[in-house]
Amino acid sequence: MAQAQRITPRAKDFSEWYNDVIMHAELADYSPVRGCMVIRPHGYRIWELMQGALDGMFKATGHRNAYFPLFIPMSFLAKEAEHVEGFAKEVALVTHTRLKATGKTGAGAVMVDPTSELEEPLVVRPTSETIIYAMFAKWIQSYRDLPLLLNQWCNVVRWELRTRLFLRTTEFLWQEGHTAHVDEADAEREARTILGVYRRFAEEWMAMPVLTGVKTESEKFAGALRTYAIEALMQDNKAIQGGTSHNLGQNFARAFGVQYQTAAGGLEHVWNTSWGVSTRLVGGLIMTHSDDNGLVAPPQLAPVQVAIVPIWKSDEERGQVSGVGGQVKADLERAGVRVELDLRDNVKPGAKYFEWEALGVPVRLEIGPRDLAAGQTMLARRTGGKAPTPIAGVVAAVITALAEIQRGLLEAAKQRREQASIRGVTKAQFIEFMKGSGGFAYGGFCGGGTCEMEIKEQTGATIRVLPDPEFRSREAPKTCMWCGKPSVAEAVWAQAY
Amino acid sequence: MAQAQRITPRAKDFSEWYNDVIMHAELADYSPVRGCMVIRPHGYRIWELMQGALDGMFKATGHRNAYFPLFIPMSFLAKEAEHVEGFAKEVALVTHTRLKATGKTGAGAVMVDPTSELEEPLVVRPTSETIIYAMFAKWIQSYRDLPLLLNQWCNVVRWELRTRLFLRTTEFLWQEGHTAHVDEADAEREARTILGVYRRFAEEWMAMPVLTGVKTESEKFAGALRTYAIEALMQDNKAIQGGTSHNLGQNFARAFGVQYQTAAGGLEHVWNTSWGVSTRLVGGLIMTHSDDNGLVAPPQLAPVQVAIVPIWKSDEERGQVSGVGGQVKADLERAGVRVELDLRDNVKPGAKYFEWEALGVPVRLEIGPRDLAAGQTMLARRTGGKAPTPIAGVVAAVITALAEIQRGLLEAAKQRREQASIRGVTKAQFIEFMKGSGGFAYGGFCGGGTCEMEIKEQTGATIRVLPDPEFRSREAPKTCMWCGKPSVAEAVWAQAY
Repeated sequence: MAQAQRITPRAKDFSEWYNDVIMHAELADYSPVRGCMVIRPHGYRIWELMQGALDGMFKATGHRNAYFPLFIPMSFLAKEAEHVEGFAKEVALVTHTRLKATGKTGAGAVMVDPTSELEEPLVVRPTSETIIYAMFAKWIQSYRDLPLLLNQWCNVVRWELRTRLFLRTTEFLWQEGHTAHVDEADAEREARTILGVYRRFAEEWMAMPVLTGVKTESEKFAGALRTYAIEALMQDNKAIQGGTSHNLGQNFARAFGVQYQTAAGGLEHVWNTSWGVSTRLVGGLIMTHSDDNGLVAPPQLAPVQVAIVPIWKSDEERGQVSGVGGQVKADLERAGVRVELDLRDNVKPGAKYFEWEALGVPVRLEIGPRDLAAGQTMLARRTGGKAPTPIAGVVAAVITALAEIQRGLLEAAKQRREQASIRGVTKAQFIEFMKGSGGFAYGGFCGGGTCEMEIKEQTGATIRVLPDPEFRSREAPKTCMWCGKPSVAEAVWAQAY
Repeated sequence: MAQAQRITPRAKDFSEWYNDVIMHAELADYSPVRGCMVIRPHGYRIWELMQGALDGMFKATGHRNAYFPLFIPMSFLAKEAEHVEGFAKEVALVTHTRLKATGKTGAGAVMVDPTSELEEPLVVRPTSETIIYAMFAKWIQSYRDLPLLLNQWCNVVRWELRTRLFLRTTEFLWQEGHTAHVDEADAEREARTILGVYRRFAEEWMAMPVLTGVKTESEKFAGALRTYAIEALMQDNKAIQGGTSHNLGQNFARAFGVQYQTAAGGLEHVWNTSWGVSTRLVGGLIMTHSDDNGLVAPPQLAPVQVAIVPIWKSDEERGQVSGVGGQVKADLERAGVRVELDLRDNVKPGAKYFEWEALGVPVRLEIGPRDLAAGQTMLARRTGGKAPTPIAGVVAAVITALAEIQRGLLEAAKQRREQASIRGVTKAQFIEFMKGSGGFAYGGFCGGGTCEMEIKEQTGATIRVLPDPEFRSREAPKTCMWCGKPSVAEAVWAQAY
């Protein structure tokens, strides 16, 4: 009880609540390095499960993993003009390679050795387009080498000033896909395929509903032709960009001379795509489902799906309930369920319940002597509800419960999002909406950067996407909701992380 | 044929042969960043398979994965005196965080912004003891929090001057385990457990036989109490250190104030261990098994275990052989075998054979029209030998062949190692041995650093380990093979990578 009460309620302070959930579930911690976080085992396990699912989907669509250097020569970054402008203000720069003794001891014992300065500084990768396409130029000769479909799992660094656990950190973990194609159509197909993979992953694994669509010019990736994104709405009605997929056109191919011989014998620049999702998704998962008792993990990505908590008073009872608990654990593991049996002697059952709740475990099985006598166990769902379940059928009951919880979380999140969405807004409604509860506002957009800028300044909202057809309103808006000029596309605005 | 001949024979130049094998199998490539390599998909897949096997073994022994920052404040590194001395000469240092425009365009468009200098430089981790134990100090309160058994998979950077693909690169990928224990005995048990895991992995997965033992004072890890290692002998009779496991004692616990309350209520420093293996193991795998035709991959870690090469002359034949090939592929995949069906029209069967050989694929199945008529396929082993196999029993035959090849590679490597080992050496024999073919030389050691230094200077050989009992010679040596003083332990010397 004591522990659960230490989580700040969402209604009181959403941001504090978010940090409390992370600390109580031991998902991450602040590190001594500004803006860098430590991902603790429970949080890292979620990321591993995410990686496993995504990696399978990438491989199933023909991609192979590789690994490119952490460091990028400064001159490489500079070769694509928009790209370097996008990242120049937030890069970690390696300039020296040796320390030397100061003569002191302890923390002050060393300093940078000025004689070890590099001729050309190295940028710690904020993203890897430049170094990867430099290699593509070496590997790609002919149309037979295309498409080249690579992905890498790695760390990247962007020197952010305002950071927040998982959502925005100086260093973060991600995957970045990089591909090369014979023409625009094939690159576009790839960028779209990956957007579909991201959407499916968000919905089926994270139980996090997303909008898909294209970014406006001002929000697209530095160096891209077009950027597609998945966008989700958190419980505080702020949006997060969950993943992006870029059609890079021939911009980088030109900058790095990536050319191929066509079947007809000509020489053409390739078309590239790049795409990524990061540990930010863990933050999205937390903010989509969790409650005032702590983390709620969707079963598909829960490090522990079932916690078995035996209850006893005497040693004899302990022997009985833990014996049955061990059997149930073995049965569940055989069925592929991730399960823990909590036999700690120094923690009371009630405290164990709260701990497993804070950790987000979807299903708890309580087994006490009276349950045993009745041949049953109490099955409690993290999302609410508790019912006796015959031990004989507990595996099937657990599997059903996990599937229902997974489905229920997606449905609940979808409903929440729709309740926080407003369509066909006028300017006045829009301003009121963004001042008030906020959420996704759908409205007409003239395509002008001036409107985007004014809206951002006055309401803090940005265009998350120009949504794909299935997310658009039944009636296409005729005018820009801000300036009243003709609308070129429906847009979805929100305040965002 | 043409391709296979482009690999330099081992006998001609072992080092060139090694690079050729890597290039032909497309395992890795040089990058534009000094000392950094690109790991290409075929090489990265070997690393992924290694990771999968090791990760399973770590988890089975109670370890959990986490992730700590890439950057370490310079002052942290300095806190453990031996540690900083060990790494001071080879660290990448981040000193600035912004670029600014020069007014030029293209590669010279930016320079380091001098106003963005960091107050304290950051070290790109060469290893993570310091940052991890700083966190341990925060997390560990009581004996109930121990043992704490963590591992991380990440990249590290050591500014090496002489680099070699996989074996020694400025940036490399590895895992580093970090644990904390209540006492020396428990830390020692842990360090030994991991040494056993590494040995089992080397032998059962890599088919690479290893010696285990302890390092001498001069070869141990900077900051450790004791370092254990696995050591393997390559085909050129040079050794590689495949992995190390350190009992760190209380050195880092003291430097970072990692203390716990004992059951009796006292306050004690924890005992730490750390241990790691890296992408260097891929280099060890290559140099242990490969031949003048290219890579030989042990089946357990082969990205592709079976290549099916159909042979046809007419379109009708193509239809038949590719149909059967597809069926065999599906059957093998169902049995968990990693298999490729090579239906390329623009490459002749002979050229395909050589390609799959260079890629190290353990088993090739050739299916031609005559084979089909006889209801059979030709099963060729990468390690030699070719026999017709009934299609009806091909899955079982392949699984048997893979197991035999795996066993055969380990046996062959063991024999090679033993043939290149000399026991009970005198000083004269030792010098001649190291001038000649080289290998593992077993002899008495006085324990003196002076002998170690002289030996290194005069022969290039170092003590790889003071071997564990099962690797020691039947008769314990009585005197140091170099200086003649009483021997304190048998040692194994070799020239090493």
